[in-house]
Amino acid sequence: MKSRARGARLLLLLLVLGEAASALGTACPAGPGCRYTPDWPSLDSRPLPGWFDEAKFGVFLHWGVFSVPAWGSEWFWWHWKGERRPPYERFMSDNYPPGFSYADFGPQFTTRFFHPDSWADLFQAAGAKYVVLTTKHHEGYTNWPSPVSWNWNSQDVGPHRDLVGELGAAIRKRNIRYGLYHSLLEWFHPLYLLDKKNGFKTQHFVSAKTMPELYDLVNRYKPDLIWSDGDWESPDTYWNSTYFLSWLYNDSPVKDEVVVNDRWGQNCSCHHGGYYNCQDKFKPKTLPDHKWEMCSTVDKHSWGYRRDMELVQTVSLGGNYLLNIGPTKDGLIVPIFQERLLAVGKWLSINGEAIYASKPWRVQLEKNTTFVWYTSKGSTVYAIFLDWPEKGILSLKSPITTSATQIMMLGIQKDLKWSTDPVKGLLISLPQLLPSALPVEFAWTVKLTGVK
Amino acid sequence: MKSRARGARLLLLLLVLGEAASALGTACPAGPGCRYTPDWPSLDSRPLPGWFDEAKFGVFLHWGVFSVPAWGSEWFWWHWKGERRPPYERFMSDNYPPGFSYADFGPQFTTRFFHPDSWADLFQAAGAKYVVLTTKHHEGYTNWPSPVSWNWNSQDVGPHRDLVGELGAAIRKRNIRYGLYHSLLEWFHPLYLLDKKNGFKTQHFVSAKTMPELYDLVNRYKPDLIWSDGDWESPDTYWNSTYFLSWLYNDSPVKDEVVVNDRWGQNCSCHHGGYYNCQDKFKPKTLPDHKWEMCSTVDKHSWGYRRDMELVQTVSLGGNYLLNIGPTKDGLIVPIFQERLLAVGKWLSINGEAIYASKPWRVQLEKNTTFVWYTSKGSTVYAIFLDWPEKGILSLKSPITTSATQIMMLGIQKDLKWSTDPVKGLLISLPQLLPSALPVEFAWTVKLTGVK
Amino acid sequence: MKSRARGARLLLLLLVLGEAASALGTACPAGPGCRYTPDWPSLDSRPLPGWFDEAKFGVFLHWGVFSVPAWGSEWFWWHWKGERRPPYERFMSDNYPPGFSYADFGPQFTTRFFHPDSWADLFQAAGAKYVVLTTKHHEGYTNWPSPVSWNWNSQDVGPHRDLVGELGAAIRKRNIRYGLYHSLLEWFHPLYLLDKKNGFKTQHFVSAKTMPELYDLVNRYKPDLIWSDGDWESPDTYWNSTYFLSWLYNDSPVKDEVVVNDRWGQNCSCHHGGYYNCQDKFKPKTLPDHKWEMCSTVDKHSWGYRRDMELVQTVSLGGNYLLNIGPTKDGLIVPIFQERLLAVGKWLSINGEAIYASKPWRVQLEKNTTFVWYTSKGSTVYAIFLDWPEKGILSLKSPITTSATQIMMLGIQKDLKWSTDPVKGLLISLPQLLPSALPVEFAWTVKLTGVK
Amino acid sequence: MKSRARGARLLLLLLVLGEAASALGTACPAGPGCRYTPDWPSLDSRPLPGWFDEAKFGVFLHWGVFSVPAWGSEWFWWHWKGERRPPYERFMSDNYPPGFSYADFGPQFTTRFFHPDSWADLFQAAGAKYVVLTTKHHEGYTNWPSPVSWNWNSQDVGPHRDLVGELGAAIRKRNIRYGLYHSLLEWFHPLYLLDKKNGFKTQHFVSAKTMPELYDLVNRYKPDLIWSDGDWESPDTYWNSTYFLSWLYNDSPVKDEVVVNDRWGQNCSCHHGGYYNCQDKFKPKTLPDHKWEMCSTVDKHSWGYRRDMELVQTVSLGGNYLLNIGPTKDGLIVPIFQERLLAVGKWLSINGEAIYASKPWRVQLEKNTTFVWYTSKGSTVYAIFLDWPEKGILSLKSPITTSATQIMMLGIQKDLKWSTDPVKGLLISLPQLLPSALPVEFAWTVKLTGVK
Repeated sequence: MKSRARGARLLLLLLVLGEAASALGTACPAGPGCRYTPDWPSLDSRPLPGWFDEAKFGVFLHWGVFSVPAWGSEWFWWHWKGERRPPYERFMSDNYPPGFSYADFGPQFTTRFFHPDSWADLFQAAGAKYVVLTTKHHEGYTNWPSPVSWNWNSQDVGPHRDLVGELGAAIRKRNIRYGLYHSLLEWFHPLYLLDKKNGFKTQHFVSAKTMPELYDLVNRYKPDLIWSDGDWESPDTYWNSTYFLSWLYNDSPVKDEVVVNDRWGQNCSCHHGGYYNCQDKFKPKTLPDHKWEMCSTVDKHSWGYRRDMELVQTVSLGGNYLLNIGPTKDGLIVPIFQERLLAVGKWLSINGEAIYASKPWRVQLEKNTTFVWYTSKGSTVYAIFLDWPEKGILSLKSPITTSATQIMMLGIQKDLKWSTDPVKGLLISLPQLLPSALPVEFAWTVKLTGVK
Repeated sequence: MKSRARGARLLLLLLVLGEAASALGTACPAGPGCRYTPDWPSLDSRPLPGWFDEAKFGVFLHWGVFSVPAWGSEWFWWHWKGERRPPYERFMSDNYPPGFSYADFGPQFTTRFFHPDSWADLFQAAGAKYVVLTTKHHEGYTNWPSPVSWNWNSQDVGPHRDLVGELGAAIRKRNIRYGLYHSLLEWFHPLYLLDKKNGFKTQHFVSAKTMPELYDLVNRYKPDLIWSDGDWESPDTYWNSTYFLSWLYNDSPVKDEVVVNDRWGQNCSCHHGGYYNCQDKFKPKTLPDHKWEMCSTVDKHSWGYRRDMELVQTVSLGGNYLLNIGPTKDGLIVPIFQERLLAVGKWLSINGEAIYASKPWRVQLEKNTTFVWYTSKGSTVYAIFLDWPEKGILSLKSPITTSATQIMMLGIQKDLKWSTDPVKGLLISLPQLLPSALPVEFAWTVKLTGVK
Repeated sequence: MKSRARGARLLLLLLVLGEAASALGTACPAGPGCRYTPDWPSLDSRPLPGWFDEAKFGVFLHWGVFSVPAWGSEWFWWHWKGERRPPYERFMSDNYPPGFSYADFGPQFTTRFFHPDSWADLFQAAGAKYVVLTTKHHEGYTNWPSPVSWNWNSQDVGPHRDLVGELGAAIRKRNIRYGLYHSLLEWFHPLYLLDKKNGFKTQHFVSAKTMPELYDLVNRYKPDLIWSDGDWESPDTYWNSTYFLSWLYNDSPVKDEVVVNDRWGQNCSCHHGGYYNCQDKFKPKTLPDHKWEMCSTVDKHSWGYRRDMELVQTVSLGGNYLLNIGPTKDGLIVPIFQERLLAVGKWLSINGEAIYASKPWRVQLEKNTTFVWYTSKGSTVYAIFLDWPEKGILSLKSPITTSATQIMMLGIQKDLKWSTDPVKGLLISLPQLLPSALPVEFAWTVKLTGVK
Repeated sequence: MKSRARGARLLLLLLVLGEAASALGTACPAGPGCRYTPDWPSLDSRPLPGWFDEAKFGVFLHWGVFSVPAWGSEWFWWHWKGERRPPYERFMSDNYPPGFSYADFGPQFTTRFFHPDSWADLFQAAGAKYVVLTTKHHEGYTNWPSPVSWNWNSQDVGPHRDLVGELGAAIRKRNIRYGLYHSLLEWFHPLYLLDKKNGFKTQHFVSAKTMPELYDLVNRYKPDLIWSDGDWESPDTYWNSTYFLSWLYNDSPVKDEVVVNDRWGQNCSCHHGGYYNCQDKFKPKTLPDHKWEMCSTVDKHSWGYRRDMELVQTVSLGGNYLLNIGPTKDGLIVPIFQERLLAVGKWLSINGEAIYASKPWRVQLEKNTTFVWYTSKGSTVYAIFLDWPEKGILSLKSPITTSATQIMMLGIQKDLKWSTDPVKGLLISLPQLLPSALPVEFAWTVKLTGVK
């Protein structure tokens, strides 16, 4: 009796917070009346909303209480208290009073200089079509006023602001899609530790924290994307992932447009969910048969060809490219990150035509005198080459020319001369320009129409 | 289906945290096999464990994050943010940066100098037979590592200690009873506010916070007393009080000895529960027919007769006297409080015989030349008078002397001379001593044996 | 050349800051034209301004950055960094980050709740006729905006207020005399350490810090009293004390009323200067032939007879009584200190007649059935007895009665009966009153007129 | 008398702190026995030690308490409290409690992550031949334990380290010259304000602060360069500059090698002292006849040609180039600054031959098809051109070829072909290389030998 009453109450909570729906439906994607059922075959059958594949390039923001020590990485707490790594313990004892806890960092997360519109301007200038913010990392601190994370959220402690909401408003004003990163697990949450101790046969944590927060996030912020993480210690059945996803797809306010990734339980990554992130540094060599996304981090030291190649290579192989940066506890994006993002934006302002809304071509990579990555859009083919060939002649073997073939370089308003050679294939005469007159400094794009 | 599963999980949580029992039993107090049912007639029928009536005098400790601003009262947060009282808003804007939140006080609650044994020594010297600590006031911050108050408890934020546990250990070593104050409501807890908005028709807060914490407190610390508070905005049915109490009385580890008060729901105070606190400054004029307790606060300015009279009057009228003090955020009990408590202890070291384990006598108060309060123990009667009578003759009208009557003053080892007078009643010749030779400075006790 | 120019400049500084005068005069106290010379014979010849002997009772305030750790004593810094006492080092390492310096305590000296008028009201109610504040203790931090203690003073760091000035204004409004405590030495001042290393043969510190500050204090705040301290490591010649005092007595704005003590150099205490403090716990047994002052500290635990006896004994032996308390870093005088001070004030409100402006009598102490301390005023003699005699008969051997002798008790408006006995001397029948009707609770005063 | 004694003492202080010499000497630069007199004709006659002209490129570090707010500029305090600019006042009221003072920033200047060797490695990699650190900016806070800036220096407050000393040790280990920036004035020093009020007719501040600190800096750290600043409000006679410089040149431990700039008094800049900085953004168009230095700041946004041109242009016109960066309060040089410095270092690793130890040539700038800046070393001439000429032919009009003329490009190991043309002058065929094979990305250097 009692248990039933309490169950009902909890459900009510979920309904209030998340307007959860329990209705059962028929398999999808059969049409308007279709409803997804909480199982992978049904959920996996949902087509990926089209905007995501077209977006290609997004910015990922890791921001939270870990931005206060800003030492090591966002895994600071775990390395310090979970693993007790000596450098982390030393860092603390050298700089803080005995007994200082991770929670004591909270009030120092001031985000004092956080101006969401400045950030959004930067992301727009970078050419990002979506932005993903950590709403809650494994530390459990929420960047929005979560009702089930009282006094451990950005409204109560630290910024005294709704970071998720404020950034979202600025992002949307610029027609950029807004994604929310959410960690299922929380390293040190007592209820999570209790479930873990119970071999994940109990779900106290899921009921009290994970699910209420996921529903709350969706209902409040209507995200275009949910970037799930922290799933690896327990199966999807522990996390109730399929129930959440079926609600998300059937009844949530974002059911038509929302995109999710694949981290929904131990056995899901690279197998279930929306697009695939697979493991952390997943980088396919050939064209995968499922939409995927590659996450990369702005590197402080080396940039340029390598970085750009990653974006080009990813898109050529059908992936999206999500570039991560870490703002400061004060709410600043340091100049080096600004510069890196603006460099991408500058490149995309010329070459974006070959990237956004492109599709993989029948050939993705050609290793000839130089590496050439292909993308396509309808019958147009784009060849992006990373090194300027000696003598200024680019040779391509894969495109088959026709009488209608026309070739130009993105950023330059005139056709290029070309010829064919039985051995070397298509030979394109690149423009004879001073370096400073070239449209970009590296990774130039040749656009081919009328080829096969 | 789903709701049932979740209900089961929540119950499991309660079981884990609190080993809740759901069995139904027959009415009590019929004997060993008896079980209390979750309704007031059954619960109210439980006899009060004997130790409480014998204890008479306890110390009440208000300690929490409110000890940081230490301005106004422990209602600081409410006056500031709930009522927006101008002096509180001014206090904050004068002394803290814009946006400073109540949670930001947390790390300053250091309890740096808290030595539980020193406190316990003091309470023992004060003659306290029980000590009640705020485990959680209306601010929701818990003085123990509550698993459902993550990062808003004394282990995670501020002291980094289990205050409830540490004080308990020290108190028990001295054979003093340990009581736990617990506020049902939390002014600003989002789930409480949600329930409130719902007219208390939902119980999210009770399920997620109140009940898990009450069970946890009982199972962890095995309190002798639960001093419930914060019940006034909603009925006992919202709080699930009767279910909790039936478990407490039937199955908890403290079922035989635990005592509770009467604040378990809007309609309970002065009517249901264990002993009665009734409203906050409840002070009966005549002997109540139910065990009660009076709470008083050490006053910084005036002490002495008035204060003592309160203790004497309370015990004479069958009550217990619970004297409140507020330690500092550093964990100190300031000297003025120490002195007040030691003064009570000194008085009790002489007069305790008339207080501890005493019973109200057939007459409680006699207003004659001076106020006289009576207590009794078996056939012995104690008359406590507050002013030293002129001429040194104390006259009492209520006691009826017999041939066996003997009279002495507590603290002095010899019988006093007495006589009777048809009009004035019993006339007792008080000892002719210099003020400095008197056993106490005020409120002397005359012990009468062989009277009726 | 250069040295001369610089010397002139420094002198100018002193003139600007202190309007120092260099004129030499004839010996004093010869009258209006007299000028004191910078040597002890001349300076010691100055009569003590009359107000000081009449004042009898003052309050001493120790307040500074040492009020922040508030641990150990105002010698915290020395015990920690000068002596490296293990408990102090442990206190720091337990509670503060590595490298935390004494100066880092500065910003925490907020004096947030310092209301000078409340303090002054309290001192007035305590019956204090003068109040002495630490303007600068051995830590060197100045409680006023000293131009030669930039960023290590109460205006720049911590309170952001002129504590010396604010308290002075409040004190003066109540016609209480205002004294300034000033430490000559500063434990850790680099220039002081340099002079010390040089065997005090250089005076860099005196020129750059001590003298400018002393002149500044006198010119700004016009103190009634300078309570000099920190003189013990070097002779008066190092400190330039006699030059300062000759200016103070001849030309300063307070030359007529100012009183100083005797701590002006290694060899001065108890020998030179104004009144004598002698060593720290100096307590003469018989009447000294020079005006003196006793410093005592409010004790947290025991009060009453002993404390009061100190005041009575001190005044009887011709001394002033200066009672010390330590306000908190927040600017509060904790209740126990308030209460102690008010108790003195209450006693003085009845017995002040025997204290203020009194003179030692020919006999100071009589040990008869009880201790009796005498004071006098003109031909009136006051006998203060600490224990109420058995039978209520006070016997005094020293006063010689005459036909005009009249005796009463302060606080009671009627003459007491008395007789003489060849052996026991004067026998006074004390009033037969209940303890609660007595004018004070201890240390009663009998006033005798017409005695010899 | 007294004034003389004090003057002597102050002199002694200066001697102790600075080993000041007062001896007068004959005019210089006559040889080994020569002594400079404290007047400009004599001081200006001193030849500039040779290392400075050879160094050409240095790094300037602005670091102090202003690095804590890190808002606006190092003039934060002045804009806030001196000028009361609204944005600064708002910044403070938005982020700090009322009454927060500039000194309260002190403890937050932690320099926690300051590793002098990492900094020095970076400066070495940047090709800097000297590094100049602010030892004390106009705020008066000293980055070393100055005995006359007690509790307002980096040892007592904030870092608890000797920043000047630690960086110096690391710099010297790498054979880089070490310069010390020192501000004569301090905006808010009470003694400075006093002197200012007195129309700079008094020198209290100079005696008590400026001179002792300058002597202390020289004696302790033996700087290769003193970068004086803050001189503009008063003449050199107020600052005693010529006395200091004569000591520096005659008797200081660095008398042979030390270099100073020209900010020693209102009328000095661009006229007296060592090399000239002239006004803040001084940028001569033609070759000055006195050694000069240009200060520039790393710009966050635009870099590249313009920046490099500054260095090249400066050296071509006989100046040194001092590039400023501002480390964080934590002691970090943010990546964008690292990158900028490393880019300079990379350019210098190829082209340094044309920069270090070079001399201006008879022509400095030639505006032909592209801007060309000349430097020289003996008979070798270096032509640095900023834009790659179309067709790869660089034409130079100024050099006159001979039969011995040889031409090569720095970074490439082979002679370049050249010819002469009656109209276009010298025509040099630049190497035909892919952009990625060029030794640097911009500002290439052609080295000509055997030209006139």
